[in-house]
Amino acid sequence: MKIGFVGLGKMGFNMVHRLLINDHEVVVWDRSAETIKEIEKLGAVGASSLEDLVEKLPSRKVVWLMVPAGKPVDQNLDELLEMLNKNDIVIDGGNSYWKDTQARGEKAAKEGVHFLDCGTSGGVWGLQNGYCLMYGGEKEAAEYAEPIFKTLAPEDGYVYCGAPGTGHLVKMVHNGIEYGMMQSYAEGFEILEKTPYDLDLAKIADAWQYGSVVRSWLLELAVLALNEDPKLDKLKDFVSDSGEGRWTIQTAIDFDVPAHVITASLFTRFQSRQEESFAMKMLAALRNQFGGHAVKSKNN
Amino acid sequence: MKIGFVGLGKMGFNMVHRLLINDHEVVVWDRSAETIKEIEKLGAVGASSLEDLVEKLPSRKVVWLMVPAGKPVDQNLDELLEMLNKNDIVIDGGNSYWKDTQARGEKAAKEGVHFLDCGTSGGVWGLQNGYCLMYGGEKEAAEYAEPIFKTLAPEDGYVYCGAPGTGHLVKMVHNGIEYGMMQSYAEGFEILEKTPYDLDLAKIADAWQYGSVVRSWLLELAVLALNEDPKLDKLKDFVSDSGEGRWTIQTAIDFDVPAHVITASLFTRFQSRQEESFAMKMLAALRNQFGGHAVKSKNN
Repeated sequence: MKIGFVGLGKMGFNMVHRLLINDHEVVVWDRSAETIKEIEKLGAVGASSLEDLVEKLPSRKVVWLMVPAGKPVDQNLDELLEMLNKNDIVIDGGNSYWKDTQARGEKAAKEGVHFLDCGTSGGVWGLQNGYCLMYGGEKEAAEYAEPIFKTLAPEDGYVYCGAPGTGHLVKMVHNGIEYGMMQSYAEGFEILEKTPYDLDLAKIADAWQYGSVVRSWLLELAVLALNEDPKLDKLKDFVSDSGEGRWTIQTAIDFDVPAHVITASLFTRFQSRQEESFAMKMLAALRNQFGGHAVKSKNN
Repeated sequence: MKIGFVGLGKMGFNMVHRLLINDHEVVVWDRSAETIKEIEKLGAVGASSLEDLVEKLPSRKVVWLMVPAGKPVDQNLDELLEMLNKNDIVIDGGNSYWKDTQARGEKAAKEGVHFLDCGTSGGVWGLQNGYCLMYGGEKEAAEYAEPIFKTLAPEDGYVYCGAPGTGHLVKMVHNGIEYGMMQSYAEGFEILEKTPYDLDLAKIADAWQYGSVVRSWLLELAVLALNEDPKLDKLKDFVSDSGEGRWTIQTAIDFDVPAHVITASLFTRFQSRQEESFAMKMLAALRNQFGGHAVKSKNN
């Protein structure tokens, strides 16, 4: 299949590479001319602009967007809607908020363009393992683009979820689950690390990979990390988040679902980024007020 | 190797079966004569009492206990300590609290008997897959019993953790992690289920098994459950717990480790078992008091 691909970041570059290896033709556009040159060496056709990319595609044109969530998606989609023909297909393969996706789908539909949303999991390992893909949108368009999904995913690793937005919705919840799983491992390893028994965390995590109930791909990654740095001495205890956890909690609120663990997982990340906790200062002040309990003053 | 095995429950029976398949000789004792008869058919040697079991073992005697945590372990250990010789080995393969284990180890040491603690994971699938084993206690005794650990575990699936109690400590934390992982999946699937898009949870969970970040053995089991009962209509929303979650939280408290997610996981299980929540009645009463907010009365 011949498709256009916009955005050659960490994810996009490897995805195009995987498509090329499997004999698809890919016309690419990215803000970095250097990255385009790099991927041309792997067989992609570079475009000089988004307009050039669209011109280089045969009809029925299919364009995959792999750009950061938010404005970059809107900007590219708006430009594309001016250039594409009726019945063409735009696929947003990034981590967009599913409600934004639904609004974009309606906007595209007004121009007769199909907008598919595809959640893409697999991180930097996807080139080799394939990406798990969850996609939604108009069924006929999804079926038309299936050769692309099929190539990017491992066997059985792609699923058509249904209505517009459901691909991003399912991917968002997937990431919410990931937050909770990671936090659970994290707490468990901290308990082990804090005991006085000098436990070999890497060896323990490795044994858990064979026959235990907690074996998982994340645990495999934990083994890799602990083998590199057994006490994680090289790392700061600072954890970012990139939006899906927040949206998962917002969606839980939208549908009145108690989500204690996913919520706690996000909030511990917030805490990890605080240089100073106002809440903890407030608690210290209150304990001091009612009980004369000692506080630690900054001047000491 | 020839060993004694006490306790032929769900776990114990299959473990003896796995030992027999792999050419160990196993003398068994269980309160159920019928279960003993059943396992004799698979090649075990039945004993008529704990004393008979000990008599049937060659020296250096090794006895594996696979009985419920708490009193049953103490009773069997106390009896064994009267019958065993110096340097013999008792292995507690159950889910004992690691602090109880340390006390038992000291008691056994006074009689010159080695007490090993082994956490055993794998559930009903262990017969086929092998059990992930984490064990602690005196190193020489652990090495002596290694052929047993090696047979019960899958390749690379057993780990000597160190000091007495560390096997059960590591297994306990393993189970605490399991609580958090399961709760995270549970919340994610509920969010998906509560959306208005009639998502096919089994199909989604299945696709997640291939290339996604949340793939795991627990997710495999989720796929099995959802394929059998796609909306879980046949189940009550009631979840038991068997102690390790509580002990993990107690241990987190002992070592001042924040464990939000593991704690929340246990507390949601408590909530699932309440026919009525006094806390929720208290909240309703307070909202009514300060704001005249409507309450639901039992008489309506």
